[in-house]
Amino acid sequence: MIRDLIMKNRSYRRFDSTVKLSPNDIEKWIELARFSPSARNLQPLKFAISTDEEMNKLIFPHLGWAGYLKDWNGPAEGEQPVAYIAVLKDKLLADGVHCDDGIAIQSILLGAVEDGFGGCIIGTVNKSKVAKVFKLPDTLEILWMIALGKPAEKVELETATGNEIKYWRDKNEVHHVPKRPLDELIIRK
Amino acid sequence: MIRDLIMKNRSYRRFDSTVKLSPNDIEKWIELARFSPSARNLQPLKFAISTDEEMNKLIFPHLGWAGYLKDWNGPAEGEQPVAYIAVLKDKLLADGVHCDDGIAIQSILLGAVEDGFGGCIIGTVNKSKVAKVFKLPDTLEILWMIALGKPAEKVELETATGNEIKYWRDKNEVHHVPKRPLDELIIRK
Repeated sequence: MIRDLIMKNRSYRRFDSTVKLSPNDIEKWIELARFSPSARNLQPLKFAISTDEEMNKLIFPHLGWAGYLKDWNGPAEGEQPVAYIAVLKDKLLADGVHCDDGIAIQSILLGAVEDGFGGCIIGTVNKSKVAKVFKLPDTLEILWMIALGKPAEKVELETATGNEIKYWRDKNEVHHVPKRPLDELIIRK
Repeated sequence: MIRDLIMKNRSYRRFDSTVKLSPNDIEKWIELARFSPSARNLQPLKFAISTDEEMNKLIFPHLGWAGYLKDWNGPAEGEQPVAYIAVLKDKLLADGVHCDDGIAIQSILLGAVEDGFGGCIIGTVNKSKVAKVFKLPDTLEILWMIALGKPAEKVELETATGNEIKYWRDKNEVHHVPKRPLDELIIRK
């Protein structure tokens, strides 16, 4: 059931660093993005992968983690991602990506979750620094980073009250994510 | 397998109009969007649904269909969508939606496909006209329309050669979609 997979696909920010990923594992998930819809079928997205421990260490300091958790600077050693995907726009192929990026990322993450992994989309990225780590040409622009690994945290959904949508972590380190109720999402006449 | 579902989730533009959808069917798929990631968990997306035949008829003329098929003005009577979702940004909740829209739409379409339906994301929309049909307030902006129904066409993927990515229809009315090869999507050092 797609619902089960979507429920299991939470934004995981802490991982078991002992469980590694290979480029092949990740390319299989990127193939899911390849088979996903693209505006005007232009397919301007490209992907750069890091599964290398040294490279991951160079990427990590240039990412922002969980903006609402002010006392937390990101996953500690042993809980850091074992892989990253840089989601890129090929500027030679299109000016904008419309909503291709979200479509592709959701496909990738659902593939990862099905295989027992998980990840987090990161938008707070020092793009010029990360581009240097990947040695990207100027024609490729980083849109998002996806951090990946074997999840090592519990994430629970709850129903949001009013505009209280900030995620939070309880004393048992469970991460809580308030989701607006379905009735608020649907505009009825 | 998520791969099977993603493969089956093609952009369908012709439907069997005799197979109807209820608002409940569609709300179930929107719930999948509700459970999907949202940037900073802001959840600024809202959704308006039309399953009403008269309303669908008012929406249809304001949509652009398959830009590359110059001789085709969209699905004929009997093959038109039986439902639409207007994917909306609530301007009171966020300025931008980052890649929330693509994520949500992919979740919705995968839900639809699992239930034996399918759809097409439409970006060519006369937004002010469609907003009037839905009687939307100014605070809700239409981002995309999703056309939905029971698919009544065959869509086949093929591997693109060079930059030949325009989809095309053969003499048997099969819709062909060239996808760039995986090796082109992955940037290697």
